[in-house]
Amino acid sequence: MLLNEPRLQQRMTDVGLDAVVATAPENVTYMSGFWALPQWIRRGPQAYVVWPAPDNGMPEIITSTSTLDLVADQELWVSKVRRYGDFHADIRPSAAEDAVSERHLQLRALPGHSDAIAALVAALQQAQLGRARIGIDEAGLVPGHLEALKAHLPNASWVPATALLREVRAVKTGDEIERLGQVARIAERSIQSALAVAKEGATEEDLARAFHIKTVEEGALPVLGCIGFGERSALMNVQPSARELRAGEIIRFDVGGRFRHYRADIARIATLGEPPPQARRLQQALLRGVQHACDIIRPGMAAAKLFEAVVRVVQREGITHYKRDHVGHGIGLDGYDAPTLSAHSTEVLEEGMVLCVETPYYEIGRWGLQVEDMVVVRRGGVERLTETKGDIMVVPL
Amino acid sequence: MLLNEPRLQQRMTDVGLDAVVATAPENVTYMSGFWALPQWIRRGPQAYVVWPAPDNGMPEIITSTSTLDLVADQELWVSKVRRYGDFHADIRPSAAEDAVSERHLQLRALPGHSDAIAALVAALQQAQLGRARIGIDEAGLVPGHLEALKAHLPNASWVPATALLREVRAVKTGDEIERLGQVARIAERSIQSALAVAKEGATEEDLARAFHIKTVEEGALPVLGCIGFGERSALMNVQPSARELRAGEIIRFDVGGRFRHYRADIARIATLGEPPPQARRLQQALLRGVQHACDIIRPGMAAAKLFEAVVRVVQREGITHYKRDHVGHGIGLDGYDAPTLSAHSTEVLEEGMVLCVETPYYEIGRWGLQVEDMVVVRRGGVERLTETKGDIMVVPL
Repeated sequence: MLLNEPRLQQRMTDVGLDAVVATAPENVTYMSGFWALPQWIRRGPQAYVVWPAPDNGMPEIITSTSTLDLVADQELWVSKVRRYGDFHADIRPSAAEDAVSERHLQLRALPGHSDAIAALVAALQQAQLGRARIGIDEAGLVPGHLEALKAHLPNASWVPATALLREVRAVKTGDEIERLGQVARIAERSIQSALAVAKEGATEEDLARAFHIKTVEEGALPVLGCIGFGERSALMNVQPSARELRAGEIIRFDVGGRFRHYRADIARIATLGEPPPQARRLQQALLRGVQHACDIIRPGMAAAKLFEAVVRVVQREGITHYKRDHVGHGIGLDGYDAPTLSAHSTEVLEEGMVLCVETPYYEIGRWGLQVEDMVVVRRGGVERLTETKGDIMVVPL
Repeated sequence: MLLNEPRLQQRMTDVGLDAVVATAPENVTYMSGFWALPQWIRRGPQAYVVWPAPDNGMPEIITSTSTLDLVADQELWVSKVRRYGDFHADIRPSAAEDAVSERHLQLRALPGHSDAIAALVAALQQAQLGRARIGIDEAGLVPGHLEALKAHLPNASWVPATALLREVRAVKTGDEIERLGQVARIAERSIQSALAVAKEGATEEDLARAFHIKTVEEGALPVLGCIGFGERSALMNVQPSARELRAGEIIRFDVGGRFRHYRADIARIATLGEPPPQARRLQQALLRGVQHACDIIRPGMAAAKLFEAVVRVVQREGITHYKRDHVGHGIGLDGYDAPTLSAHSTEVLEEGMVLCVETPYYEIGRWGLQVEDMVVVRRGGVERLTETKGDIMVVPL
């Protein structure tokens, strides 16, 4: 299961919530397993999960009639479903012979509601939550929805819950870690495929194409593909261009796809032929920063303390003026899950968090260097999800 | 240019707006050319375009300091930029030698604002819009932002503008049609690549992999990949599974990637070996519906009238009980642009609209059949962006 149910229940108790309603795609998938295509590829389409506190009824998925096929076809741990809107389809005269079609027909036979908010209001009323304290994931609603909810259920009290759900998602379950490990290694292998086409005259686009093709071959989908050469490696969000690779140049990868909805975000540096000695020295300092993080990360450590320690190591190891806003972040269904490893973070590392630990260094007009690894916070230290090391990889000329 | 500027100005005049503020990613890209990675791959990161009416100042991009590299590297028709937030980077001691780095440094030297809303408020104040009537694209804001804007500029009046911008985007420019044509043909060629691996025992996932790889090879990125066999072709949003293909079965594709930010959405049907005669008859009826649409589409036609005509043709041609909620929609930066070709639509077709015209037919437990073409509304009729026809494609056994 993706959902860390004990953690959700604990946070709901802490805040005194009678129910939580997920609305953003990552939270809907997280709380139920349900991946509703329309809300993942566009803004606007609505799907929800209502999660009551124990004794307040059963969790429930609310989605459009046109997406019930996905409910029927996916393995979900929330079985109660409410639908809204119409979507016409015929039914084979003989009874459906396969389990998915049969379940699809059962779902379509449920009573329907006129729209998403009407369905949500009915679900909350039926669960006797009309006077309850309800955590509402405000991020996935469209403007006007919250006002409509308040008007329909004037005696309920509404607490914004997007931040709470992000906090719940921060500590991963075994199933989540399994997917994150797979997508991290897919990203590493995709970098290898990109480097296999690196040569003088190859373009950033050539490498990006090879990268994404490998990602697709491995069963993932492309998301992040920042690949830049030479001075373009210093562009933080560099989008692959027709710029050609020259001998001795830096190639910076800040990349990662999506595998079974889970994201990767890793960074590696390569050069075509021997790197400039200075680049090697800088990259070593950045690498030691990440290695130090991996050495000291423990449950209970303050994220801000980790930040300071990593920056200090990079400074000591050769980039005396090194300055960063953060040295990493959580990752999961979203590319920036909690915690944030920054100076001002008040978060504390916990067992089961999955972190991107990173030490990028940008010198505009010259190069960008970076190490970014994905690691799990375990009781005795970190478990690395990435298998390669962050040294500069030299592609022979 | 992607922006249809005369249409934007006209709509602003119609509604009496002194300025429009784009906030959703598709509207930011549309109005300026600026593609801000973070807001496209996540919800939350903010980038805006302020577009004043003539005589109210110059259009302006507002984005985070960490994304100024993308501003520098992209060809934009909005040159005024305002930044917010900090992002540390070093500068090569010698002056930057390439144009992108130089522009990047210039942008970073602009005065910064603390956050996105502070920057937006400053931009509006500087343009003397503190008492103006401002169209605000509510879709890209996060909850609380609109309230903050109202508090900072209490004398401005705020008009929701997401629907207005969608309406502006409905009539495409030549540059947009060029991209849409390319991505439509990429989708067609990707279907051919998928069919090249279709054989007994091949899985839906095998075909999806071949489809997406071709899409990437052609310079696009995967988005929509609904590919289903047999009874699974009747699942409207079917996600590729390990289901194996058998002789005589339907393969339904409802697919399309993203090329230079523009979407494709087309549907085709294939079978492995000869299709059941009944499937061929049904598909012919659906195809005649789309063909009829292509015959009668003209600027000035009511979308609802087109809907009725298409449904009537499908019914007459063999699916007497055919019933649909819509027979298509616009497409562009978003997969569902205006207009919607439905019975209740009040929209009217205009020259330069790009439409997905579709006649899906789902029989749950048996099969799904569909034709979906992309066409441009031209003065004398439609220009097809898809090159293949919607007949059943037979893959030899």
